[in-house]
Amino acid sequence: MRLIVQKYGGTSVGNPERIRQVAERLLETQREGCDVVAVISAMAGVTDNLIKLARATSPQPSERELDVLLATGEHASIALVAMAVNALGGKAISLTGAEAGVLTDRVHTKAKIANINPKQIEELLSDGYIVVVAGFQGQTAEGAVTTLGRGGSDLTAIALAGALGADACQIFTDVEGVYTCDPRVVPGALKMEEIAYDELLEMAGAGSKVMQSRAVEFAKKFGVPFEVRSSFHRTAGTVAKEETANMEDVVIRGISVERQQAKITLAGVPDAPGTASRIFSAVSAANILVDMIVQNASDQHTTDISFTVHESDLPRAEELLAPVAAQIGATRLMAQSGVAKLSVVGIGMRSHSGVAARLFDCLGAGGINIQLISTSEIKIAVVIDEADVDRAAQLTHDGFGLTRFAQAPPVKG
Amino acid sequence: MRLIVQKYGGTSVGNPERIRQVAERLLETQREGCDVVAVISAMAGVTDNLIKLARATSPQPSERELDVLLATGEHASIALVAMAVNALGGKAISLTGAEAGVLTDRVHTKAKIANINPKQIEELLSDGYIVVVAGFQGQTAEGAVTTLGRGGSDLTAIALAGALGADACQIFTDVEGVYTCDPRVVPGALKMEEIAYDELLEMAGAGSKVMQSRAVEFAKKFGVPFEVRSSFHRTAGTVAKEETANMEDVVIRGISVERQQAKITLAGVPDAPGTASRIFSAVSAANILVDMIVQNASDQHTTDISFTVHESDLPRAEELLAPVAAQIGATRLMAQSGVAKLSVVGIGMRSHSGVAARLFDCLGAGGINIQLISTSEIKIAVVIDEADVDRAAQLTHDGFGLTRFAQAPPVKG
Repeated sequence: MRLIVQKYGGTSVGNPERIRQVAERLLETQREGCDVVAVISAMAGVTDNLIKLARATSPQPSERELDVLLATGEHASIALVAMAVNALGGKAISLTGAEAGVLTDRVHTKAKIANINPKQIEELLSDGYIVVVAGFQGQTAEGAVTTLGRGGSDLTAIALAGALGADACQIFTDVEGVYTCDPRVVPGALKMEEIAYDELLEMAGAGSKVMQSRAVEFAKKFGVPFEVRSSFHRTAGTVAKEETANMEDVVIRGISVERQQAKITLAGVPDAPGTASRIFSAVSAANILVDMIVQNASDQHTTDISFTVHESDLPRAEELLAPVAAQIGATRLMAQSGVAKLSVVGIGMRSHSGVAARLFDCLGAGGINIQLISTSEIKIAVVIDEADVDRAAQLTHDGFGLTRFAQAPPVKG
Repeated sequence: MRLIVQKYGGTSVGNPERIRQVAERLLETQREGCDVVAVISAMAGVTDNLIKLARATSPQPSERELDVLLATGEHASIALVAMAVNALGGKAISLTGAEAGVLTDRVHTKAKIANINPKQIEELLSDGYIVVVAGFQGQTAEGAVTTLGRGGSDLTAIALAGALGADACQIFTDVEGVYTCDPRVVPGALKMEEIAYDELLEMAGAGSKVMQSRAVEFAKKFGVPFEVRSSFHRTAGTVAKEETANMEDVVIRGISVERQQAKITLAGVPDAPGTASRIFSAVSAANILVDMIVQNASDQHTTDISFTVHESDLPRAEELLAPVAAQIGATRLMAQSGVAKLSVVGIGMRSHSGVAARLFDCLGAGGINIQLISTSEIKIAVVIDEADVDRAAQLTHDGFGLTRFAQAPPVKG
């Protein structure tokens, strides 16, 4: 018997009608001859309301109690989904994270899964139950409730699929899969049939928030393939899995766009150990997320350091860095908002040289100026004017032949 | 060190401001040198909303899943109370029913407490924590969440107080204690300092819903005294406990009034075994709650059977009984709404004869006609016209000297 783990997010169980639709799909999957484990998030909006209530009660709620509070969101939705399956004549049972055997470390509100003991799930499956598990939560060895942080339900689904040796893990969401680019940016963007974990990780880190990186990393580490698909349509989604040989035939898998970025450059920084650390310590202490970091030497004794932050963090970052720039002896601190990041991602670029060149060709042909460049093994990211980013994405998408019916020109080099 | 169990109902934790007040009172009690265990209900309205959600999802929700769903109400409120204590600089920790060691049978939605293992609570108390326990819930030996049914949080508090050998159990509620009669009916009604379990049971069964009977019965069975007091005022409440010798000095403890009753009489019922059973089986199969039942023989071969139901159940009860009355050969089926029940309760009536006579005197003096009489060892109940019930309560309250400054006339007999 095939075993399928299906994960439904908060929007998919947002009201009783949607809960019924989830129940129908679970039953349908069972009728197709599968054992079914459902992993369910809290109903949309519930977690935010609980956090509001906690803030109204305590300026700094203890994290242990916050976990007890937040876990109630998933407890409610698993009970409702199980009820809905039963109401349709099926046989379902709900399990909390603890009951499902999800053991975590003791780091409340962002616990890591330490171990999964799927014994109870397996027994219930063999008794014919659809097993409805609370996502986003587990318990410590001492029995305290923990939550897994953002994207935690995806993590639960993937970890359970791994522990149960499931034949498939399906992540139902409000998008239909992973696209070669955001279809709102590039209308001809295609849904991918498959994507390598690493590619999805680079896409996720580059603004395509289909899945949280933690869940993808976990899937990669334990080799659990999963499918991202729509809870509102019946079409197949995108399967994320280990890279296969033929994946490299595709030069780049997709293009990611991240808007509302800002660029900060410290120029003429004396080239001494510890300077970079002083810069980024100052920024991260203020909880400002730094994305791209680029350093290049302009002469032998000084260097320029640039990095990007979200536009909304720019004023604070500038304020923090002004004294640091003076202390380390930088000649200038420059800040610019209104920029965007465009990344091309693909494990194929390992074996195809000339990918960077082709990207720069595409942008150059459009008269688009490149402000920063940063590369990883399977990604090339550039910072450009935000005003140019849609056009840049379209040109690049065409240039790498990602659009259906478009012919990919041969890669040089 | 004194150990105090305090129970707060849904209204007492109805919003963040009230939760803060509960937290303050818990801390105050601890500062007075006590170990403190708090038993908390779901925030007012939450349980009803969850039930609505369940009904919208499933016409007949499975009781196991309903328990998982309902338990989230208390999980949220314990976390919030613990946060509020911590926010005030205290040290609190929340425990679900399961974590608190409340073991129940497997009867979902109305489980009975089978056992309490207070080990974890005791350890946390000795570490200086205020322990905040979810009322109304427990778990089965297999680890499934159960709820205890109506009044379940009172039951949790009393059972924990018993298991912990607490020095006091305080039930905080929206009334200030148990009164000699409802002060809205008899303005001179007095708050009692103490009441015997049995008296409180008879009062509860007679419309004074300060506490659910189950919780009182549990307290009686295990000899756990408790105090019913207001969460909004600082005044002492009423202590329920084992009867003591001097309790019998008071002839009657209080008067209870129940309105919106209806009376049904089957007259001329052949006096044969099994007839009563056929009547009441028909009624209880429709989930209609029967209160008083009175039977008296009018001649050697037939009997009259009367009983009361809530007014709203009268049409359905009449409809059900019409065919039964014909089958058993009753000569008449009579139904009357617009009646009320008045009960006088007191363990003192065991040792004082003439209580019934004095009650009838009081009513007779007011020209109030008695339609049914029923007595237990410590209660006399009469059914009268609902229009007369306020006056009847006042006359009886005066007649038995329950009103402050009123002189009790000597009991005859």
